[in-house]
Amino acid sequence: PAPTWDDHVAIDAPPETLCKGLDGNDSMRRKFEVMLRAAQNKITSAVEELDGEGTFKQDVWERENGGGGISRVMSGGKVFEKAGVSLSVVYGSMPQEALASATERGVDRAAGMKPGERVPFFACGLSSVMHPRNPMAPTMHFNYRYFETDGGVWWFGGGTDITPAYLFEEDMKHFHGTYKDICDKHDPEYYAKFKKWADEYFVIKHRGETRGLGGIFFDDQNNKDPDTHFAFSEECVNAVTEAYLPVVAKRKDSPFTEKEKEWQLMRRGRYVEFNLVYDRGTVFGLKTGGRIESILMSLPETARWEYDFKVEPDSKEAEIMDCFKNPREWV
Amino acid sequence: PAPTWDDHVAIDAPPETLCKGLDGNDSMRRKFEVMLRAAQNKITSAVEELDGEGTFKQDVWERENGGGGISRVMSGGKVFEKAGVSLSVVYGSMPQEALASATERGVDRAAGMKPGERVPFFACGLSSVMHPRNPMAPTMHFNYRYFETDGGVWWFGGGTDITPAYLFEEDMKHFHGTYKDICDKHDPEYYAKFKKWADEYFVIKHRGETRGLGGIFFDDQNNKDPDTHFAFSEECVNAVTEAYLPVVAKRKDSPFTEKEKEWQLMRRGRYVEFNLVYDRGTVFGLKTGGRIESILMSLPETARWEYDFKVEPDSKEAEIMDCFKNPREWV
Repeated sequence: PAPTWDDHVAIDAPPETLCKGLDGNDSMRRKFEVMLRAAQNKITSAVEELDGEGTFKQDVWERENGGGGISRVMSGGKVFEKAGVSLSVVYGSMPQEALASATERGVDRAAGMKPGERVPFFACGLSSVMHPRNPMAPTMHFNYRYFETDGGVWWFGGGTDITPAYLFEEDMKHFHGTYKDICDKHDPEYYAKFKKWADEYFVIKHRGETRGLGGIFFDDQNNKDPDTHFAFSEECVNAVTEAYLPVVAKRKDSPFTEKEKEWQLMRRGRYVEFNLVYDRGTVFGLKTGGRIESILMSLPETARWEYDFKVEPDSKEAEIMDCFKNPREWV
Repeated sequence: PAPTWDDHVAIDAPPETLCKGLDGNDSMRRKFEVMLRAAQNKITSAVEELDGEGTFKQDVWERENGGGGISRVMSGGKVFEKAGVSLSVVYGSMPQEALASATERGVDRAAGMKPGERVPFFACGLSSVMHPRNPMAPTMHFNYRYFETDGGVWWFGGGTDITPAYLFEEDMKHFHGTYKDICDKHDPEYYAKFKKWADEYFVIKHRGETRGLGGIFFDDQNNKDPDTHFAFSEECVNAVTEAYLPVVAKRKDSPFTEKEKEWQLMRRGRYVEFNLVYDRGTVFGLKTGGRIESILMSLPETARWEYDFKVEPDSKEAEIMDCFKNPREWV
């Protein structure tokens, strides 16, 4: 049977790497984990500094069969209602159905397989969602991951995307611009391709609207040298602080009305809908017996659903709703 | 292509039946709809009377190709935060994947079919969720439905279940006892079977806990005369007022702390998780292009997620959590 999180044990201090024993120090598995752990440290420090009050609580698990995770969650901060940055290293074998839900490449790989057939795999990723309190400050999500299945098949995936409740064009220019600059440095085709991929991925199909205002999203990347893909992932994950935190700093003390807070909570309801119904990582985690609290750390502290709510014409809510219905270019 | 709700039109006054033109007045399709409409009237009147302030807002739709719906939702009542009772009559053809997610029988019927193959069907149902404000007053859900696919295949399904945030054994004895009495009148095997079915259906698998404290749940019922199944469904749907409203009346003014309110909202978060990830009706509705506001009317006005929340030993929260982990017999 596949290892599940049922046999995880909480440990006090994280081991040097969670993929110990898998292979040598120079493997991409280890190298990717070490890079993500440094990024986790950098990002959580910067968020604590901006928040000024809240601190991250760390939970570390190690599995007997290998793998584990380091979750860091800030609850009840001054600026952030909830912010989580979670590393996970998982390997073992999984049913082909789970593989198919994990990635687009997984769908291809699983196509020729029988239901129930198991696939050896390795996955390492850092994922994060941050929900600020102020309705003028956007929510942000990122996930960077490296995946292997047996037979030397490997690929990189990732992305960073932003979900405001209210539109400030300059903020979107800054956020998208930061990622466009990085993309352009690595490949002139990346930004247009990965921006479109995000617009198409983060869609709440049953609503006919996007979850937020996009960013970049990529998966199944393996057409270059692994170190080249690695360098791009490393730069992207490290740019989270620069792309996002200045926007929160600018908006965190904005005045707002009770109605505006309610609108933010309704958009958080949409966030919950996307994550539980469509998000590949969440569905993958729920199916493979992942650690539930780490997977659902992405959910906001509070969310709201009003029956048949409609935005008022020409309102600020209508302005951003139009962007959710018709994705725009920001840079 | 299958009809979708995209071509629905809002109408002022509901037509006599929404399955007009399908067949004669004596068909089970019509008879079931007429019965459900009477139950919808009875239940919404009783809820308005108990609430004392809130009223139901009605939305009626009719589809050109046949079918439609009558949604009634109370928002911002004095006793009820949100209460919805929604009738829907849907027919056309659906992809086999959607049929498989609709019912257990659908899984069987879809087993021999090719992906994308379409199945003519008819479905009529009344479904409801009521979320009271007071954390001592339980949430209640019911759904009664009649389903047909081509070739004379038909079945009845339904159930009523209760979801308290705090345990009052006498309330559970009353609620379960009301349905046990009805079950016993119709078939001595029903209660044990349908109570167990509810305990097994309303499970949040990734949490290893039930959504609430059960009730009855049945599906694929067609082993008796259709009128016999009809009579059972009719009695069950009409017993909602007697089984549930006295419990709300007793608890609606109970004192409670802020912590108890937060616990209720966290249980509502679990309600959202179940409905979006596992509930067959919700998944079916999202896949078949149902009217989203009617389908997601089941979601609470507010829900809450705290990272890694654990109940305190020997607390009231621990007491009911034990019931969610280990379903009990109440009568």
